[in-house]
Amino acid sequence: MNLTNISQNKVAGGWHKQYRHDSNVLHCAMRFAVFLPPNASLSSRVPVLYWLSGLTCTDENFMHKAGAFKAAAKLGIAIVAPDTSPRGEEVADGEAYDLGKGASFYLNATKQPWSQHYQMYDYITQELPALIEANFPVSNIKAISGHSMGGHGALTIGLNNPNSYTSISAFSPICHPTQCPWGQKAFSAYLGQDQETWKAYDATELLKQNSSPLPILVDQGDADSFLHEQLKPESLIEAARISDSNLELRMQEGYDHSYYFISSFIDDHLMFHAKHMSK
Amino acid sequence: MNLTNISQNKVAGGWHKQYRHDSNVLHCAMRFAVFLPPNASLSSRVPVLYWLSGLTCTDENFMHKAGAFKAAAKLGIAIVAPDTSPRGEEVADGEAYDLGKGASFYLNATKQPWSQHYQMYDYITQELPALIEANFPVSNIKAISGHSMGGHGALTIGLNNPNSYTSISAFSPICHPTQCPWGQKAFSAYLGQDQETWKAYDATELLKQNSSPLPILVDQGDADSFLHEQLKPESLIEAARISDSNLELRMQEGYDHSYYFISSFIDDHLMFHAKHMSK
Repeated sequence: MNLTNISQNKVAGGWHKQYRHDSNVLHCAMRFAVFLPPNASLSSRVPVLYWLSGLTCTDENFMHKAGAFKAAAKLGIAIVAPDTSPRGEEVADGEAYDLGKGASFYLNATKQPWSQHYQMYDYITQELPALIEANFPVSNIKAISGHSMGGHGALTIGLNNPNSYTSISAFSPICHPTQCPWGQKAFSAYLGQDQETWKAYDATELLKQNSSPLPILVDQGDADSFLHEQLKPESLIEAARISDSNLELRMQEGYDHSYYFISSFIDDHLMFHAKHMSK
Repeated sequence: MNLTNISQNKVAGGWHKQYRHDSNVLHCAMRFAVFLPPNASLSSRVPVLYWLSGLTCTDENFMHKAGAFKAAAKLGIAIVAPDTSPRGEEVADGEAYDLGKGASFYLNATKQPWSQHYQMYDYITQELPALIEANFPVSNIKAISGHSMGGHGALTIGLNNPNSYTSISAFSPICHPTQCPWGQKAFSAYLGQDQETWKAYDATELLKQNSSPLPILVDQGDADSFLHEQLKPESLIEAARISDSNLELRMQEGYDHSYYFISSFIDDHLMFHAKHMSK
């Protein structure tokens, strides 16, 4: 598979790099960003944290704003930030920010006009890690995290693939998308009206059904304007209680939905994943 | 003076806030950002680092990308990031990114059409700190830093006002603007053809003439694409040698001109200033 390097910046002793490639799964050209810590080499492969961003984001938001490089460099963790949807003129789009480009919800769409390109679940779980492991000095040890829509992605992908990841974390995730406006709009479009098909992409439903073998860390700001209508962390807590899953959900006083919040606690998440990656 | 709060985000236990105010010096409405560490209070006023950004920037670039909050919170330092020029429809502008709005060079313009609004030197040295000290829980202990055009601003403002600041630092500063294309273009427009008037805004000229009573820390990436044509750190080193000034200029291998570079070393700058602020 052909990777084209489109930028590189030394940072915290390591490297931030952006690449473009043609995705066989998404049928379009995709960009992603990778941070490689200073100790990464072919003779010393490092584990990878996959970071899934939220609505309207690209690979750049986390890399610009999260302030994660110093801790990741110190812990020896690579970070991969994919884009949030398929891209390009030929890709179907919605009219608002919460459907279509920048709003994939990290699922495999089954309905027209979305199904041709919106196969982000397969891209994140299969094509992208294969590409990363074939082209960078990383091991096959993976963890997954994300923010908002990407927190939903991290939770559902991690819960559905417990053998692929060591640990799951999220900031301000959409915890129960089948029961909130963002999720209902997206799932109706991408998956259709049969709500049974929605459940595989709902972290609360998944966690209710099966105890998670993976540890989960979630941070949520209590001044987040999306908290009550869209995010519903209380549903996730209740589901984890029912299935006796290892969820730590921290309500953080005064914090909002922004990257200022993420940057305040990203080091905790990196340390959490590092601990489980090294087991 | 009337301050209007336009955003606030909790970060690293402290607060990032943006304000708008009418500037008497610049004759236009201005925006700035401030970070207040968690320990700042009227009974425990904290020192302030003024950060001057580079060409095309606003108050937001540093606050989004520098990753400075955790260290500033720990050290108990407030950070103020002003805009990089006067703003508004009534303000004269150039046709390119390196003259006019976003490109003030932090001087007092004497030539038309610039002189009415482009009085950024007075804004940074007088109006803004008075405003900050009257409205926030900060002391009158100040340091100054900046990047590129803002590194030039920090050096020249610090060297011209040694009693106002404890210490000066810069990333990738324009060290000798009278001898580089960016500086010559800006100074010709803002100050006119008499090059004697340029020297008060040239860090190399200032440092050649007088030994700096303030310690100076400069970081410069050796992979910076502007290094040889625009930045000329070797001139600053030579001037500091002539005047026996306390300049530490660190060439950082592999780093470029971006905020990835700044974020890699901003903690060192904060610790440098904290040490001198506490003397």
